[in-house]
Amino acid sequence: MSNLNPKIKLNKKENINIDKIYSGLLQGDRFSLGKAITLIESTKPTHKEMTKKLISECLKTQKDTLRIGITGAPGVGKSSLLEKLGMYIIEKGFKPAVLAIDPSSNISGGSILGDKTRMPELSMSENAFIRPSPAGKNLGGVAKKTNESIIAVECAGFNPIFVETVGVGQSETAVHSMTDLFILLIQPGAGDDIQGIKRGIMEMADIIVVNKADGENIINAEKTFNQYSGIISLLPEKESGWKTKIMMISALTGNGVKELWQIITEYENNAKTTGYYRKNRKNQNLSLFNEYLFNNLIEIFNTDPNLNSLYTETKKKVETGLMSYYDAGDFLLKLLTK
Amino acid sequence: MSNLNPKIKLNKKENINIDKIYSGLLQGDRFSLGKAITLIESTKPTHKEMTKKLISECLKTQKDTLRIGITGAPGVGKSSLLEKLGMYIIEKGFKPAVLAIDPSSNISGGSILGDKTRMPELSMSENAFIRPSPAGKNLGGVAKKTNESIIAVECAGFNPIFVETVGVGQSETAVHSMTDLFILLIQPGAGDDIQGIKRGIMEMADIIVVNKADGENIINAEKTFNQYSGIISLLPEKESGWKTKIMMISALTGNGVKELWQIITEYENNAKTTGYYRKNRKNQNLSLFNEYLFNNLIEIFNTDPNLNSLYTETKKKVETGLMSYYDAGDFLLKLLTK
Repeated sequence: MSNLNPKIKLNKKENINIDKIYSGLLQGDRFSLGKAITLIESTKPTHKEMTKKLISECLKTQKDTLRIGITGAPGVGKSSLLEKLGMYIIEKGFKPAVLAIDPSSNISGGSILGDKTRMPELSMSENAFIRPSPAGKNLGGVAKKTNESIIAVECAGFNPIFVETVGVGQSETAVHSMTDLFILLIQPGAGDDIQGIKRGIMEMADIIVVNKADGENIINAEKTFNQYSGIISLLPEKESGWKTKIMMISALTGNGVKELWQIITEYENNAKTTGYYRKNRKNQNLSLFNEYLFNNLIEIFNTDPNLNSLYTETKKKVETGLMSYYDAGDFLLKLLTK
Repeated sequence: MSNLNPKIKLNKKENINIDKIYSGLLQGDRFSLGKAITLIESTKPTHKEMTKKLISECLKTQKDTLRIGITGAPGVGKSSLLEKLGMYIIEKGFKPAVLAIDPSSNISGGSILGDKTRMPELSMSENAFIRPSPAGKNLGGVAKKTNESIIAVECAGFNPIFVETVGVGQSETAVHSMTDLFILLIQPGAGDDIQGIKRGIMEMADIIVVNKADGENIINAEKTFNQYSGIISLLPEKESGWKTKIMMISALTGNGVKELWQIITEYENNAKTTGYYRKNRKNQNLSLFNEYLFNNLIEIFNTDPNLNSLYTETKKKVETGLMSYYDAGDFLLKLLTK
């Protein structure tokens, strides 16, 4: 870990001062930000309460940042691209942050490869903030924490925020639901099947980037580019009015990084001019809210000692078709509210 | 309306006997089936209770039917295809049913064009049952009613069940969620945009049928066929292990109808052999159940005089980003369960 991106351990004896952390964030203090995220990632009930307070404060100082989701199969070069793109925009005066979600890793608090290895230059820059999300099996939990981390990172003045994930599970849908712009990174190769890209991910992408367009790969990269161009041309316009763009890049040589940033900027300008940016954020907030409400409802059914067994039994009847879903639903909601 | 597909009015003075309707269904009595669906479509609380009882009975006699969703833009020829396909399989000894959902129509209890006009032969056949779903703005309500109608129709011995919908709204997702097999009907033309096919519908399709492959249209049909073949070849395999198939048809001449039925049969055999059929039904039941639970939770928040204004206020705060979605969720669920 770079000293510049500290993973602060919360000292048991230490008095955590939320006001101090918050004012640290407002000053862009990296140490406070590290502490804030460690707090966000903590599962201790007292820390959860403190997180709640901190995030409520942060929400008061919201900015019009750009949240960029980036997904792609393992080995496609997400980190290398972020390294190059990050350094490029730092030169332009930006302060990028990278939050990485790796649902396949179970090592708490970090990704398998350290940030230093993955993004050597970026992780050493004092104008960047990199942080892997704690992995875990509960995607809802990870999503909530990532969302909170985004808010904290923004509060500390970082922008844009890259949220990186491996596009093989369900995490990319979660990332899509909390970003303004979604980039799918692919590599030269023979179709989706081999790249392990799940159905629907392509539909979510605003920009498709064919990486590794360098050396001997160029011909294959062009082939892949043409294949995807064909598909994209047939996809209808997105709600944002944006037509999915596709481009080639080399994260190795840096070729195309400038053009990618141009497209990202074009997207941002377009979304902010048309009002889609605000509308999308609003819808995202509502969706996350609805999802959270539903998940917690199920949580109540699963954990309440009075409801638990009735819920399991009823659910089983629904699954096997012995009970209609609406009878079952009416029955359970009546139990809950009576 | 054909006399063979009666839309029975429920006489106010008449004593509705659920046991009698149910035993009528078991005997395949069309009059009882008409009455059952009228009951299902009724919004009267007493009728709702009776429906509940009836459907619970029907669920006890479930059969391994095939539920086929069929969608496509208006004018693409869905009814003409169903007319030809329906008559073809009646000759093979099947008893098909067609339930049509038209969310764009608000005329209660019927589609704009009568069934006689839409499917002249099929609507006169005593081996077929055709029924348009009552249209309405509440898609959830329509979905619930269609689901109940499917169960009643199956109880009366009809199989396969076609659920037809216009692929321009959200109804196709609802139909997809309650069928075993999903057919997208398209016509020769220049891409999705013109056909008004929504994003994601192509992804749901198990079979894509290019209709109107006759006369002068054949060249255009082949062009469209090739376009879509290209897209489909790049889509990954479905969870069912099925690779989306594409074919050309003429609902006018009947060319290709036999082949379509072959593909449908192949799909059914495959799904039943692999166990996907059961698994999918189980998942559908669970999804419908979860959706129903969630919708009713929101319904409670929206209608309960003690919760209503707090819910609206909290939701607004979430939308505008003034309150985090999890704080808002925790707050509301606490109100509900305390």
